[in-house]
Amino acid sequence: MKIAIDAMGGDFAPDEIVKGVEEARDRYEGLEFLLFGTEEKVKPLIQNMDRLTLVPTTEEIEMGEEPVKAMKEKPNSSMVQAATAVKNGEADAFFSAGNTGAILASAIFIVGRIRGVERPALATAFPSFGGKNDEFVFMDLGANAENKPSHLYQYGILGSFYAENIMGISNPRVRLLNNGGEEDKGDEVHKAVHQLMKDTDAFNFLGNVEAREIMEGTADVVVADGFSGNATLKAIEGTALTMLDQLKQSIKAAGLRGLLGALLLKPAFKSLKHKLDFQENGGAVVLGVKAPVVKTHGSAKAKAVANSMGQIERMVQENLVGKTADFIKENAEKMKVKKNAK
Amino acid sequence: MKIAIDAMGGDFAPDEIVKGVEEARDRYEGLEFLLFGTEEKVKPLIQNMDRLTLVPTTEEIEMGEEPVKAMKEKPNSSMVQAATAVKNGEADAFFSAGNTGAILASAIFIVGRIRGVERPALATAFPSFGGKNDEFVFMDLGANAENKPSHLYQYGILGSFYAENIMGISNPRVRLLNNGGEEDKGDEVHKAVHQLMKDTDAFNFLGNVEAREIMEGTADVVVADGFSGNATLKAIEGTALTMLDQLKQSIKAAGLRGLLGALLLKPAFKSLKHKLDFQENGGAVVLGVKAPVVKTHGSAKAKAVANSMGQIERMVQENLVGKTADFIKENAEKMKVKKNAK
Repeated sequence: MKIAIDAMGGDFAPDEIVKGVEEARDRYEGLEFLLFGTEEKVKPLIQNMDRLTLVPTTEEIEMGEEPVKAMKEKPNSSMVQAATAVKNGEADAFFSAGNTGAILASAIFIVGRIRGVERPALATAFPSFGGKNDEFVFMDLGANAENKPSHLYQYGILGSFYAENIMGISNPRVRLLNNGGEEDKGDEVHKAVHQLMKDTDAFNFLGNVEAREIMEGTADVVVADGFSGNATLKAIEGTALTMLDQLKQSIKAAGLRGLLGALLLKPAFKSLKHKLDFQENGGAVVLGVKAPVVKTHGSAKAKAVANSMGQIERMVQENLVGKTADFIKENAEKMKVKKNAK
Repeated sequence: MKIAIDAMGGDFAPDEIVKGVEEARDRYEGLEFLLFGTEEKVKPLIQNMDRLTLVPTTEEIEMGEEPVKAMKEKPNSSMVQAATAVKNGEADAFFSAGNTGAILASAIFIVGRIRGVERPALATAFPSFGGKNDEFVFMDLGANAENKPSHLYQYGILGSFYAENIMGISNPRVRLLNNGGEEDKGDEVHKAVHQLMKDTDAFNFLGNVEAREIMEGTADVVVADGFSGNATLKAIEGTALTMLDQLKQSIKAAGLRGLLGALLLKPAFKSLKHKLDFQENGGAVVLGVKAPVVKTHGSAKAKAVANSMGQIERMVQENLVGKTADFIKENAEKMKVKKNAK
């Protein structure tokens, strides 16, 4: 199994990317890596070339660049070359910690959509507390700005396949992120999605969920439109950071007493912080394209990179893309009917 | 100054509503209250009738009812009667802790929109940390499900007037909640809103803000479409609750050590919790209607009710509605041009 790696994407690239890949090589015996990157920068970082090939590239896509434009104007970039290797069958999956928009564009336009999938979506495994599983699939996180009811309906299928095959959750419970529990809640798009999901037998739909409750463990897949999914994800991250920061400041302001208390509670704080550091366990996945595409957060260090390789290995081993594609092909007529319903 | 009170709305109505109103009467000398509610339930709760009139009503709108239907089918409910008193000039403002949708419907259809305002919005003062002010106006929180660019543009005006006149922030910094900082981010609606706001001199627009950063104090007014504003608000509340709950559990799991640490950190925890309890300081406001309409959260106790009365007093004293209406009237032509731009 070969993974195409964009060695130049991310705040700590190429150092932490190369380090992470070598860590993954030690951990996962079946993996080979195609490293795409600027030779003089990447080569000196590599410890040994076992199961690892360096493919020299001459361009880099920066974090701030306009995604589609960057992809088109930098055909020789590490990212575009890595995605192209997957397209050409030289690698089974594509990994990057770089510019999210450009990764999405490369996934959609170079790796390509699964036939029948209208819009690929960005998904991540997100922590939940108190339910029967301790994480759930949260999607779309911003791959798709213009969301139609049929797009969100398909996310239910894509997300269920991921939850079942990669996270090992049987008959995943799918919910729709909406601003109320009742089926008539939300704008026209969300009302229509609710009806499509309610009527389907393609997955196990249990109704709406509000943003307040998504971490309570009542869903294994939470489907959102890309705009509010993105806003919800960022609101959660921002709140968690703000609270930890405020707590630190309050502790500081409490002087010696605070210091002592904090020392005693250090393990408790650490356990909470660990649960919230879900991004360390793997990356976000572009679902609905013809091969596994995984994007780790920009500030990923070696460990998060290596963990993402484990995630990719599972996706390839379980043949997630093939299973999803087969289901969509077999259910093409049904999905078309669904689509025409709105 | 007279405030029309829906004494029957809220989880702890009428007890805590009446208690809160009497607390407010002691606190604010200039206030009179019209209490709308079921006589046999409300009358026994009233300590004394000073500056307080009980107007008997025979119906109640429940929390789960369909808003517009409930409003139409229960003309003799405490909520509809209180809103009608404002419409008829018998009261200056309307307060309820009841069914949010029904309060919005009553505000919009009974109290009525300010001429020129396309869609009223639900706004709240929300805590921020580290900026020059410690709170900001966050709107729309879900009054409007179908958001057009011109609606969000007008929210900038409504929010600025509230921040300036009620929160005392001069030249409020307005930002648009969007999924990226650059002006070409977001769906078609948000791109169009950004351009309308960028070109206006009706308020001080400083660009987009992401949900991750809204509590960082870089904005005095954050304008969102009702759907993602609602999702963001709920995500923040849910995260804060989840984190406090998880911390509690981690502390418990740490046994004696945890207990001792928690005891030492109690003041620090309390200060954080207090900052996050923004709903205790007042209610959410329906902006864009012809009189102040304030909605406290359903589980409000007397203190939150009383604090909302102080908020209403400021709104009436500062003539917020009149000032807003005058501005919109004077700028009607300009706003129409803006509207036609998209």
